Amino acid sequence: MTDQNYMLQAIQLAKQGEGWTNPNPMVGAVIVKNGRIIGKGYHKKCGELHAERNAIASLTESAEGATIYVTLEPCCHYGKTPPCTEAIIEQKIKRVVIGSRDPNPKVSGKGIKMLREAGIEVIEDFMREECDRLNPVFFHYITTKTPYVVMKYAMTLDGKIATKTGASKWITGEAARAEVQHMRHRYMGIMAGIGTVLADDPMLNVRVEGWKSPIRILCDSGLRIPLDGQIVKSAGKYRTIVAYADSENTEAKRKRLHEMGVETICCPDENNQVDLKKLMKYLGEEGIDSILLEGGGTLNDSALRAGIVQEVQAFIAPKLFGGMNSKTPVEGIGVRFPSEAVKLKCTDICQIGEDIRITCQVCGKEQEESCLQES
Amino acid sequence: MTDQNYMLQAIQLAKQGEGWTNPNPMVGAVIVKNGRIIGKGYHKKCGELHAERNAIASLTESAEGATIYVTLEPCCHYGKTPPCTEAIIEQKIKRVVIGSRDPNPKVSGKGIKMLREAGIEVIEDFMREECDRLNPVFFHYITTKTPYVVMKYAMTLDGKIATKTGASKWITGEAARAEVQHMRHRYMGIMAGIGTVLADDPMLNVRVEGWKSPIRILCDSGLRIPLDGQIVKSAGKYRTIVAYADSENTEAKRKRLHEMGVETICCPDENNQVDLKKLMKYLGEEGIDSILLEGGGTLNDSALRAGIVQEVQAFIAPKLFGGMNSKTPVEGIGVRFPSEAVKLKCTDICQIGEDIRITCQVCGKEQEESCLQES
Repeated sequence: MTDQNYMLQAIQLAKQGEGWTNPNPMVGAVIVKNGRIIGKGYHKKCGELHAERNAIASLTESAEGATIYVTLEPCCHYGKTPPCTEAIIEQKIKRVVIGSRDPNPKVSGKGIKMLREAGIEVIEDFMREECDRLNPVFFHYITTKTPYVVMKYAMTLDGKIATKTGASKWITGEAARAEVQHMRHRYMGIMAGIGTVLADDPMLNVRVEGWKSPIRILCDSGLRIPLDGQIVKSAGKYRTIVAYADSENTEAKRKRLHEMGVETICCPDENNQVDLKKLMKYLGEEGIDSILLEGGGTLNDSALRAGIVQEVQAFIAPKLFGGMNSKTPVEGIGVRFPSEAVKLKCTDICQIGEDIRITCQVCGKEQEESCLQES
Repeated sequence: MTDQNYMLQAIQLAKQGEGWTNPNPMVGAVIVKNGRIIGKGYHKKCGELHAERNAIASLTESAEGATIYVTLEPCCHYGKTPPCTEAIIEQKIKRVVIGSRDPNPKVSGKGIKMLREAGIEVIEDFMREECDRLNPVFFHYITTKTPYVVMKYAMTLDGKIATKTGASKWITGEAARAEVQHMRHRYMGIMAGIGTVLADDPMLNVRVEGWKSPIRILCDSGLRIPLDGQIVKSAGKYRTIVAYADSENTEAKRKRLHEMGVETICCPDENNQVDLKKLMKYLGEEGIDSILLEGGGTLNDSALRAGIVQEVQAFIAPKLFGGMNSKTPVEGIGVRFPSEAVKLKCTDICQIGEDIRITCQVCGKEQEESCLQES
């Protein structure tokens, strides 16, 4: 077994926390002595022990002189749990192999420094790219304090998210729809627009045993959400936040919504629409680190214009709807010239059942140059 | 070296004829004796020698007792050249390994029968799938007598083929655009609608040394093609066929077009639009075995409705245009419900530069069941 094998095991362990650790990162750890694994663990849930402490708790013998492989730089600050660096030093571990750097300003190199000062050998950036892939959400949230937003849509190969009559059930097959359930478990929030709510009366929950449902966030400038719809009726069960812009004519409606368990937040822009940038700031303060945006074309366009989208996941079904009036995934105003397009960087292409998923990162102003260089 | 290695070489040889053999198939042949390749060849150009005869012509020693690997069943009829079965028998080759079956009713098993009657061992269907992939055009054309139509379009990840202003230069990158030049070389015809001609004044030719330009076919119901446009001005150099539907008011225009070297064909449907099914029959009779359809959304929709499309190649650029009025690849009327969609079967996904190409076969009525079963 090589360093690489042990780190791969740590990565696999980390993934077991998917959906439960937010807003903390997914982290895995493996402790090895004389070529044998003597302890392993992962961060299971926000508020519970970190991966390193879980690995230590599972030790089958003394870790003195052992190596620990950990996918993220160990913390060195008192948060909900005491610092992991302390535990590593106490256990007399002699070598620490680290994947990702922790961009959390409270850690960021300080953990490594502390370990080295205790005479421990530290290997940094080991399989860093693979480890970084575990936590795009954490890296974004810890540095910006706003949620990582994934725009997800399902379209035909001719770019339609519904037929000309508005029908959209179903575009993709069962496997792709199951993957969307998984995504709803994985991200803390789910966001949709009032158009979708009025058209489909959706639940926006997860219907798979053992997975959690996301916090529901609705963009509803005029507070038109129906009191007898599925969302409002289930607000006691699933946390629900409605963002609106019109505070003058909606007081009675807000009162009713609050009674039914719905939270509301007023964040208007100058056009009396929901200011998405402000909304993201608010949701970040609420501890929501990630949002799956299941919007229609109008909300998707607004979100891109507001610059709040980090990732795009397009599910493409091998079929064609046609229709000059059929809905497309991004509508609204649109750009005038190809050079003004929102630029993306493709990071994954895969087949899911009969459908295809293309995953892209949105290139921000500062990343645009590197997007161009790499392409 | 195994049978497989030799057949792979024959496939590679066959591909060298790409773009030049139409409406004949691409075929390659390798002759092996005592573990050494003693002859090889491919069908270079329609009207010239078949692969087997080119391989025999290249022999470095007697082929008596040798094995010939050939990607398609040898012909047994007098066409532009004498039958290949005769040559194989004459050369005293003792074993013939065949990839694809020849659906040409003049051959179709008769070639194999003739070889066996001469005491030759024949292996059929060897790496048939790989060999079949060389000639979807030939298999379609020889059985239907109509061209194999490939609908090609370039769109953004949000399904737009132009911005709201109609601008479309460029959606994809250089590598994808070079691949489109290659496709124009590979297929015999290229088809566009009058909308594209009026908007872009294109040449629809190939601008790469050593490749051939396709026959240009334009759908122009009202015969509105401009006499001073690039297409008409270059009709002396590249064969150009304009299909129209209005025969009453266009006599003078037709006369001018003919003087400038443009061919015209009248094939109206009941709505005085071009009847695409009739047009395909005519083009098939003209010996055109394949067409690259570079239409806009309206022509693409008409072509799908007429059932003339066999393959879809969607080039997808990692960018987003947005815009509720931006053009999409298939427009026109469109279907009412998802169950009425044109069903496709994905056969290839690849990255070309920064772009992605998805290739699909169109499921005909008879193939629909197998598309559903396989999905």
